[in-house]
Amino acid sequence: MASPSYARKLLGESSRSLFSARRSICWNCQQPVRSLANQRRKISSYGYTQAKALVYSKYGEPQDVLSLHGHSISPASGTNVVLRMLVAPINPADVNQIQGVYPAKPEMTTALGTSEPSAVGGNEGAAEVISVGSGVKSLEKGDWVIMKTTSMGTWRTHMAVDESKLIKIDNKEGLSPLQVGTVSVNPCTAYRMLLDSAKWSFRGDEWFIQNGANSGVGRAAIQLGREWGFKSINVIRGRENKEEEQKLRQELLDIGATKVITEEELQGREIRDQIKEWTNGGREQIKVGLNCVGGKPATALAKFLSPGATMVTYGAMSKQPLMLPASLLIFKEISFNGFWVSKWSDRHPDQKKQTVDDVLRLTREGRFKDIPVQECKWGWNTELDLLKQAVQGTLGGFRPGKGVFVFEET
Amino acid sequence: MASPSYARKLLGESSRSLFSARRSICWNCQQPVRSLANQRRKISSYGYTQAKALVYSKYGEPQDVLSLHGHSISPASGTNVVLRMLVAPINPADVNQIQGVYPAKPEMTTALGTSEPSAVGGNEGAAEVISVGSGVKSLEKGDWVIMKTTSMGTWRTHMAVDESKLIKIDNKEGLSPLQVGTVSVNPCTAYRMLLDSAKWSFRGDEWFIQNGANSGVGRAAIQLGREWGFKSINVIRGRENKEEEQKLRQELLDIGATKVITEEELQGREIRDQIKEWTNGGREQIKVGLNCVGGKPATALAKFLSPGATMVTYGAMSKQPLMLPASLLIFKEISFNGFWVSKWSDRHPDQKKQTVDDVLRLTREGRFKDIPVQECKWGWNTELDLLKQAVQGTLGGFRPGKGVFVFEET
Repeated sequence: MASPSYARKLLGESSRSLFSARRSICWNCQQPVRSLANQRRKISSYGYTQAKALVYSKYGEPQDVLSLHGHSISPASGTNVVLRMLVAPINPADVNQIQGVYPAKPEMTTALGTSEPSAVGGNEGAAEVISVGSGVKSLEKGDWVIMKTTSMGTWRTHMAVDESKLIKIDNKEGLSPLQVGTVSVNPCTAYRMLLDSAKWSFRGDEWFIQNGANSGVGRAAIQLGREWGFKSINVIRGRENKEEEQKLRQELLDIGATKVITEEELQGREIRDQIKEWTNGGREQIKVGLNCVGGKPATALAKFLSPGATMVTYGAMSKQPLMLPASLLIFKEISFNGFWVSKWSDRHPDQKKQTVDDVLRLTREGRFKDIPVQECKWGWNTELDLLKQAVQGTLGGFRPGKGVFVFEET
Repeated sequence: MASPSYARKLLGESSRSLFSARRSICWNCQQPVRSLANQRRKISSYGYTQAKALVYSKYGEPQDVLSLHGHSISPASGTNVVLRMLVAPINPADVNQIQGVYPAKPEMTTALGTSEPSAVGGNEGAAEVISVGSGVKSLEKGDWVIMKTTSMGTWRTHMAVDESKLIKIDNKEGLSPLQVGTVSVNPCTAYRMLLDSAKWSFRGDEWFIQNGANSGVGRAAIQLGREWGFKSINVIRGRENKEEEQKLRQELLDIGATKVITEEELQGREIRDQIKEWTNGGREQIKVGLNCVGGKPATALAKFLSPGATMVTYGAMSKQPLMLPASLLIFKEISFNGFWVSKWSDRHPDQKKQTVDDVLRLTREGRFKDIPVQECKWGWNTELDLLKQAVQGTLGGFRPGKGVFVFEET
């Protein structure tokens, strides 16, 4: 990361005057800054890039702890590149991380010139390379990249980073920044959970069952399942407005869901016979369950898994623990695992690139549709309040789509 | 199995007179029998073996549905052998099977000449070969055997069975019938659960944690763990009589337990620091959890597992489901599986033989101690009531040992 001291070292003594303003007040967070943030220019006369980042220096509700920190990024050198962010989603885990309730804690530093050690929010996103250091080999100006690991802080207009921390999008042809910027978390989660949790025969007679089917992961699983020939039973929360519910069912059917049922139907009396009928009297196996809900709905789901199946938990929207009768484990030999995309991505960067490439291939071919998003435009003059609202709203109830920052050219 | 019709076929028309008594009343179950049960002789003049079996023709409480069925077994022929049972344990699963609440249902037949299709109770046991058919290749008279699979019905004085259904004890030297007769269920369960649920380094710095540590499986796990260099945290139910509790702790320590704690201690406040201290500040990993209790004690146990560990459930003594916070699955990457020794043994007969051989080797070398048992002698004149009591008592509270039928020479 390009800190002022790093820039100073780089430019030598002659640059000292640049930092004469380093005790001024940040116009957003009202904290003293040592950076060039109060000079509003995209590229300074010395090749500096002006940037803003949504940072926090202590854990709490996003609306209370997030601030917008202006700073300048020194020219790319060595194996560093400077990125302009294109798109950065707001995932629930990002909010949990800010709240301090997420097990992966970001490193807080003063690298961006904040007065307090701070972290930049956000873990996912797509960016464009705007300049490269002389030692950079894998990237050039204009390339699109995504983050190789988590906790790199994507909620910012620009970022300086070593090329080794990035995954290059080899072929951006036919892809939108939004498609590239939302591929790392939800589609990768669905892809690995589905593919790695069973021995599939890919003969078109295998099933999976999932709750939260309307989520980003759920929709990705439906579409990937369809590609791989897996039929799916998709559980959604029932809506009071039945017309809206019907519309949602149809949406999921349209992207490849085999069956869509509500949680109430899943826990009802008739479903057992229905599922038996759908699965050809149980001869077609339900090999994988995907669970992001927990509590009773998850128990109900687990009971429909075929013997030897695996249920993968990747969320707990009900905030209830998983409740599992021992017979499911002992006699039906169901295995219960979890999936954490952050850990997976940090552990398997090569597999991540391969997974991303495959999803983007499907996207390019029109076989993997964007999930519904709520765009939050982020321009140079966008107010902190607007950005904070977008973050704070992410954990709310029924939302029309995943929140995504879409950066305007600044 | 040697049924009267089979015997009739074998002996030809000349044997017809033997079956003239086949409408008489069984002296135990008071049901009409077609067998030779009312002739009390060990070996009839025609080479028949007189046998008794604890049978049931409908599900229910053992005391209500078990009856003692006398019958005769025709001389061994072909690849059949005739066995005299030496020892047959009464496992909780056997009782559940009779109650009809066990997922493995026995086949009910009239092969033994019962008026109703019936099954013989019991799944485990050691037997001595008393005669072999002319086609038998792997066994000879005097050999000791155990059952290769479950549901063969071991609660009987004698059994006719194909040699392929048996595992021969290659070296019975230094072993008691009790040791051989109790090796298939508890020690095999502990052996496979422990060994197959983690990548062990066998360097002496690895742990497992288990509840129900005083059970047959628990004691087997302690001893096998000690052999393999696994340290163990063993959870027992606290006793009101603290002297008794202390005696039990000492017993488990004596067979190789590293630490013994009560369920109350496991759920108490001080245990976290204690376990941290025991495991060298958490540097020594707790790689496997064995659970036969369920409910809150199982949740408490799961929380002490190291990241990436596996918890194997093989029972649910509390009759409560497993309750698992999603974070254990997602962030700590704990996997939850079950183990069902019946399924394992039916699926992997070769591995069963290998496992049995290894446990018996340790037994012979004095490194694997018998578990405490409550013997129930079964002689020719033993009353049905006594046998039924032994079975019925198996699911009771604190017992001094596992119930085992020990057969007297009849």
